[in-house]
Amino acid sequence: MDIIRRARLSEMDESTFEFLQSQDADRWIFRADIEVDKAHTRMLLEKGIISEREASLILEGLEKIEKDGVDALNLERYEDVHAAIESRLIELIGEEVGGRMHTGRSRNDEVATCIRLALREELGALREELESLRRTILRQAEQHVETFMPGFTHLQHAQPTTLAHHLLAHFDALGRDLERLEAVYHRTNKSPLGAAALASTSFPIDRNRTMELLGFEGIIENSMDAVSARDFLIEAIAVSSILMMHLSRIAEELILWSTQEFDFVELDDAVTSTSSIMPQKKNPDLAELIRAKTGTVFGALIATLAIGKGLPMSYNRDLQEMTPHLLRAITIARASVRGMERMIRGMRVKDGSMRSMLDLGDITATDLADTLVRVTKIPFRTAHQIVGRAVSEGEKITLELIDRISAEIIGRPLSSMGLDETTLKDALDPVESVKRRSVTGGPAPDEVRKMIASRRRDDVNTR
Amino acid sequence: MDIIRRARLSEMDESTFEFLQSQDADRWIFRADIEVDKAHTRMLLEKGIISEREASLILEGLEKIEKDGVDALNLERYEDVHAAIESRLIELIGEEVGGRMHTGRSRNDEVATCIRLALREELGALREELESLRRTILRQAEQHVETFMPGFTHLQHAQPTTLAHHLLAHFDALGRDLERLEAVYHRTNKSPLGAAALASTSFPIDRNRTMELLGFEGIIENSMDAVSARDFLIEAIAVSSILMMHLSRIAEELILWSTQEFDFVELDDAVTSTSSIMPQKKNPDLAELIRAKTGTVFGALIATLAIGKGLPMSYNRDLQEMTPHLLRAITIARASVRGMERMIRGMRVKDGSMRSMLDLGDITATDLADTLVRVTKIPFRTAHQIVGRAVSEGEKITLELIDRISAEIIGRPLSSMGLDETTLKDALDPVESVKRRSVTGGPAPDEVRKMIASRRRDDVNTR
Amino acid sequence: MDIIRRARLSEMDESTFEFLQSQDADRWIFRADIEVDKAHTRMLLEKGIISEREASLILEGLEKIEKDGVDALNLERYEDVHAAIESRLIELIGEEVGGRMHTGRSRNDEVATCIRLALREELGALREELESLRRTILRQAEQHVETFMPGFTHLQHAQPTTLAHHLLAHFDALGRDLERLEAVYHRTNKSPLGAAALASTSFPIDRNRTMELLGFEGIIENSMDAVSARDFLIEAIAVSSILMMHLSRIAEELILWSTQEFDFVELDDAVTSTSSIMPQKKNPDLAELIRAKTGTVFGALIATLAIGKGLPMSYNRDLQEMTPHLLRAITIARASVRGMERMIRGMRVKDGSMRSMLDLGDITATDLADTLVRVTKIPFRTAHQIVGRAVSEGEKITLELIDRISAEIIGRPLSSMGLDETTLKDALDPVESVKRRSVTGGPAPDEVRKMIASRRRDDVNTR
Amino acid sequence: MDIIRRARLSEMDESTFEFLQSQDADRWIFRADIEVDKAHTRMLLEKGIISEREASLILEGLEKIEKDGVDALNLERYEDVHAAIESRLIELIGEEVGGRMHTGRSRNDEVATCIRLALREELGALREELESLRRTILRQAEQHVETFMPGFTHLQHAQPTTLAHHLLAHFDALGRDLERLEAVYHRTNKSPLGAAALASTSFPIDRNRTMELLGFEGIIENSMDAVSARDFLIEAIAVSSILMMHLSRIAEELILWSTQEFDFVELDDAVTSTSSIMPQKKNPDLAELIRAKTGTVFGALIATLAIGKGLPMSYNRDLQEMTPHLLRAITIARASVRGMERMIRGMRVKDGSMRSMLDLGDITATDLADTLVRVTKIPFRTAHQIVGRAVSEGEKITLELIDRISAEIIGRPLSSMGLDETTLKDALDPVESVKRRSVTGGPAPDEVRKMIASRRRDDVNTR
Repeated sequence: MDIIRRARLSEMDESTFEFLQSQDADRWIFRADIEVDKAHTRMLLEKGIISEREASLILEGLEKIEKDGVDALNLERYEDVHAAIESRLIELIGEEVGGRMHTGRSRNDEVATCIRLALREELGALREELESLRRTILRQAEQHVETFMPGFTHLQHAQPTTLAHHLLAHFDALGRDLERLEAVYHRTNKSPLGAAALASTSFPIDRNRTMELLGFEGIIENSMDAVSARDFLIEAIAVSSILMMHLSRIAEELILWSTQEFDFVELDDAVTSTSSIMPQKKNPDLAELIRAKTGTVFGALIATLAIGKGLPMSYNRDLQEMTPHLLRAITIARASVRGMERMIRGMRVKDGSMRSMLDLGDITATDLADTLVRVTKIPFRTAHQIVGRAVSEGEKITLELIDRISAEIIGRPLSSMGLDETTLKDALDPVESVKRRSVTGGPAPDEVRKMIASRRRDDVNTR
Repeated sequence: MDIIRRARLSEMDESTFEFLQSQDADRWIFRADIEVDKAHTRMLLEKGIISEREASLILEGLEKIEKDGVDALNLERYEDVHAAIESRLIELIGEEVGGRMHTGRSRNDEVATCIRLALREELGALREELESLRRTILRQAEQHVETFMPGFTHLQHAQPTTLAHHLLAHFDALGRDLERLEAVYHRTNKSPLGAAALASTSFPIDRNRTMELLGFEGIIENSMDAVSARDFLIEAIAVSSILMMHLSRIAEELILWSTQEFDFVELDDAVTSTSSIMPQKKNPDLAELIRAKTGTVFGALIATLAIGKGLPMSYNRDLQEMTPHLLRAITIARASVRGMERMIRGMRVKDGSMRSMLDLGDITATDLADTLVRVTKIPFRTAHQIVGRAVSEGEKITLELIDRISAEIIGRPLSSMGLDETTLKDALDPVESVKRRSVTGGPAPDEVRKMIASRRRDDVNTR
Repeated sequence: MDIIRRARLSEMDESTFEFLQSQDADRWIFRADIEVDKAHTRMLLEKGIISEREASLILEGLEKIEKDGVDALNLERYEDVHAAIESRLIELIGEEVGGRMHTGRSRNDEVATCIRLALREELGALREELESLRRTILRQAEQHVETFMPGFTHLQHAQPTTLAHHLLAHFDALGRDLERLEAVYHRTNKSPLGAAALASTSFPIDRNRTMELLGFEGIIENSMDAVSARDFLIEAIAVSSILMMHLSRIAEELILWSTQEFDFVELDDAVTSTSSIMPQKKNPDLAELIRAKTGTVFGALIATLAIGKGLPMSYNRDLQEMTPHLLRAITIARASVRGMERMIRGMRVKDGSMRSMLDLGDITATDLADTLVRVTKIPFRTAHQIVGRAVSEGEKITLELIDRISAEIIGRPLSSMGLDETTLKDALDPVESVKRRSVTGGPAPDEVRKMIASRRRDDVNTR
Repeated sequence: MDIIRRARLSEMDESTFEFLQSQDADRWIFRADIEVDKAHTRMLLEKGIISEREASLILEGLEKIEKDGVDALNLERYEDVHAAIESRLIELIGEEVGGRMHTGRSRNDEVATCIRLALREELGALREELESLRRTILRQAEQHVETFMPGFTHLQHAQPTTLAHHLLAHFDALGRDLERLEAVYHRTNKSPLGAAALASTSFPIDRNRTMELLGFEGIIENSMDAVSARDFLIEAIAVSSILMMHLSRIAEELILWSTQEFDFVELDDAVTSTSSIMPQKKNPDLAELIRAKTGTVFGALIATLAIGKGLPMSYNRDLQEMTPHLLRAITIARASVRGMERMIRGMRVKDGSMRSMLDLGDITATDLADTLVRVTKIPFRTAHQIVGRAVSEGEKITLELIDRISAEIIGRPLSSMGLDETTLKDALDPVESVKRRSVTGGPAPDEVRKMIASRRRDDVNTR
């Protein structure tokens, strides 16, 4: 019978037992748990709570358990990985010594510490993967400063822009995700160890020492807070959710751009699949799954929030059910970032196809309105009305057309106020339109080159 | 190289490949897939699309694959279970024959059919488990028709009731869950097979025949609808969510009732755990986890809804990401129902403790107000005011007290209007209070016995 | 001071008071509340609990309050609409009589009854609006049985189909929403009235009589269940969520189809907007908002589930917070259904544009593979490989090309096995492809006509 | 006809129009919009794009509109508040001048700027309210350093602690919410103005100048990012969700602690309500509603995430639907923080009742186990087993009992290894138990006083 349970209770139902387990999450924190056991043992020795000989035996036992790996533990026989490791240790070195490792702590602070350690590692890796994705986007942007394409609002052609300008919008959004990742990394990197079950311990342990040994930046001081706090975990999923939301937007665009109708890009074979029945198909499965898994991460977020809602102090078993959601969310976020990097790196841009779409949809109508304001000094709202009317007539826009409409609306032809053929033609040219939009953050190639350079500089500076 | 992929694309990235897989869901539908393959093969034979010899070879191959089990398939090497089975079949009987099994269908209709078959089975099992839980609740109710306890609103003592009355409230709520389960069972039990990729096929297949062979009640007629519909799946999770919400309410009560403060019940050892550090603890872990996993099922619901939102017709790879959520939700719902049955069956009711709480909190104040109305004919709102004032004075309620207050409020002592000591005492007795509440659905023992009898009858009639 | 509060408590903080209010929901149930008051009063009279004179005065008072309307009530001064109506009644006819209306009931059963009445009405209206939308879809389908267009999977051209076939897929999906609406209508249409606070009452009320007077189909019998059950409300939001998910899919398609790239439809001016700066824009705002509000309804669903999770029996104030979510969800669902009907009714289909897209993307490759199977008897999987190879070469598909590839793969040219030019040409014609797919539920015009006819018949039969 | 719409489209359906509106959100940003208009106008003047006279007229017009207030605008007649203000301005000063205000910008950048300004203000206020709540908690903690109470895990008595220690756990959790608020404040406080519709403008505007005038810390540089980014908004709701989750935990405790069974605190009349039928009731409505509204904020979070999922660049009308969720979430968070402050400030702590519960549930069993380890040097796991056995026997724990059990388990009575009566009695005293737990973060009064002092210092330092 279980070393913990034998203390007081008769056997548990097998099905209850299974329900209580969470093996995937237990595997995930196995290595972290060994680290925590070692640090705790070292501290117990330093504080004179256990002897040198006891500490040596325990550490050797832990080394062996670590080397044997989690598969050797028979997790399915124990309530959790903590019980499995402690039981295995007692098997190896006897209860007389092995039974001392758990002095001055509880599974409540232990598991909180393990999750923070394991998450810290994932967040560090995710940060690097996200930086790699951003570098890939920046490299593609550099190639496409003069790749002209329609800019969309409401998925309608709005104004011309360039692919570089478009890609930089995603680059910047992902930069804010990086900031949020950084913040949650630091909030995660705190030690709850030593809080024991909820009210610390009467053994003279040193919480700052285990913090130091485990590389934490600080401690979660109040012991009840330490065992019951899961806001770091929910925050990590929230940050992942916003990141996934951003990735899903890029994924959606890659799916749209790969259609026969848009035909803006061709994805690499390595990230697409074909059909079991339609041999001509080249499906953007990876992009679709990133979009779909965004929903899964949202589900993980709401699940953890709902689990945490209304829980009284301090530790409740409910908290265990949060960990698999964290594991799922962070695993998906990492794989999605890598997948997105792979797609953007390998996509073939069809610039001719992008450029040709600029001739549809009166995409330079705003330019024309702005030009009318500049040249003829009519108010913007009036220019907007004149151009709107011209567009809705559905013909090619000419000076005659504009004059006829302005005569109706303001009583004068605009050609009498300074508008001429050349100005009109220039206003309607989509490439000229992009070049004119050179204010800070605009699509004009020179402005975009400046933005790329400054982003490249930041990247160099920060590593 | 993959038999499907070889048609057109070069190798896929390994990490992309992993991202596309969904092995848990694939295992779940393995047996269903074999059934679908067999039914499709039989129909192809009957319609003369394949020969008797071809059909025999295919069916023998499928039998062998089924007997070998899903573990023999090396799922990790294939995009999905469908490709794995077809590839294995071709290994066993050659492409010349094995390559004919997929005639006139696609993975799109195949997977939709498999999910419906597998879900049908789970829903049937869940229904039986839920009926078993309800029978256990009914048996407990029968034992406790005269176990008096406080009835709560706002978690404050409101009016006295009985445990049987309380339990029947849960019984009836779960009855509506049963109705919803029944409805989604029938909406699930329809065949999409034969819709092929999205637009059916030019082979002269017979969709009604495969429907019949697979025991479906009907077909999803329109072929685009057939491959893209997942509302049955989301509905199943929604129904599970509402069921879990109901279970979480019972779980919460068991947790509260097990506290040292309430002390209304003691849970069976078999469904509790103790602490790694606090040997006196007997924790209601199973109840806590049912409460927590309720959040997980909610997460599955929102994930599938978010995945389905805004997907254009017809099949999109996003749909694959819904299945693991379904599997998780239905598995949790079933285990939670079984766990709840176990807890309610084994709980020890502390009726003395329940009864003693009735003496706190002026729980019969409403009875007193109602009595004042009946005996003295003052309006209810006035009686409410008099009793409220009496209660807030915090002393024992006596005829003198009531008279003093009524004199202030309505200018007359109520004893001058028919109220006497006996009536007052009777009004304040909690057991008498329960017995008086004999309207339809009320807690009076006779009324509750009637409700139990009628529910037992319904149960007998329906099986 | 408040007629309820005066009984026991001193004044409430103003800000607390505001926090407790829910005026939008209160307005929504105002008329229902009057109905409930009237029915309850009539029953009290019939059971002899109040006198004829008292009943008349109360009913006259209620008539006046109803006629004055909710705006006359000064809701902001009362905790809720129930208190406001009762207070107003007492103002009008005095406490001696008005104070009797609340005999034998509580706000707990009262509010549950009001929500059910108000929801019943909304669900009835939604059903009619949904039927109207489906009829409009059917009418459009009738117009477009031979409007050929690409069928999509993964948003890639998959196989040719028709607009009618495509629209019927949505029609059928919405039909299942109608079934779910019907079911929740009946589960909503039950009376909780008479349950009082939680444990019914000692007054000899008749719950079946108020049920009858209010047009309910049955009662929620157990009085604790009656006041605490909100599963009908959550189910109504869940059903609305799935419906919105379906609408969001159509909305997404209308947005895509309105792009310059797809150019499949033009939406009516009446449902689009333009830009404050880009006069050429015609934005599908209504479709975008239906898509977005789908997220809002999902939020309402998860909010109510999270609110209900873990609530102990019986009534808790938390339940009040569910009602505004119901109101929001059902209002959005109804407006979205009407908006969708308006969009589909008014859309201009660009059939030439749809047809011309069929010439892209090797959309008949599956037909070719099927034809190879039929004509040459090679297995489907081999045909799939040959066609896949042909497509990936990117040239026009000719008999020579097929022969060259089949020679490589199976060692024989397919022309030696029965394939000829005419058969090949026929296989590659998208219109012929559609016509060949005449199995049950397929896109062939005759099959689609049959489906339309049967759906029209059902519609006639059900009204 | 609308000044924007007149440009191109015929009249919109009335019901479509209503559907497109979002009046609550529009009211919320009214003042921000005027600020934006003023800053933009000043910049246009400084850059010479409009004249001094034009600027003066526009600014005067805006002043008047601001003074008249949002109610004077007839919002229901306009698509949104931006159109309403511009139209009103044109009414006041004519199109010739008023029509120039919108030069070089669009509603897309305008609305993003307004939301950021309005949110910045709310976040600042929320920060102050949260600090006030934390100060109130700290003050209560100071009063209760020696108010002993049971510490709970799994809602079971675990180890004794103090109310101060318990309250500090909440204080610290809310401190992390404050950190998150701070971070999202800075990410919100950036200017998107000048991005125009999506691609900036060809007018020589100065984005840094409007940033400065509006008190922003920086700009959202890339113009497409500027109009389409809503991650700041979702982050604000996510931060509010975690904060609400924390508040719901405190609310749950106040509800539990107010029950007749726990009886740990009495809430102030000002934050409770009574019943319309049960005059004795004192219901913790405010706490219940904070708990419930937590679900509402979660719903707002998932709604905005679902709305944002899969939206292609750049502005889509869907984004509008996010704002009411933000408004609702932030309003609830602020009111809940204030309500919680009110409840904690006014609660009456029943320290006798708390103290008396310490005598139940063998709450010092861990102390006893720890003592056995310290005194007799047996391993912790063995001590855990001995104490567990003693507890399950259900009698009073005596030296004889311990000796008998240890003889069975380890073959020796512990009294032969140094355990004596005094030590045993001391180990079992709950007050002594608390005092012994003096490690960093533990409940010992001196340690708690240290924690309070340091938190008070931080508070002083930061303001």
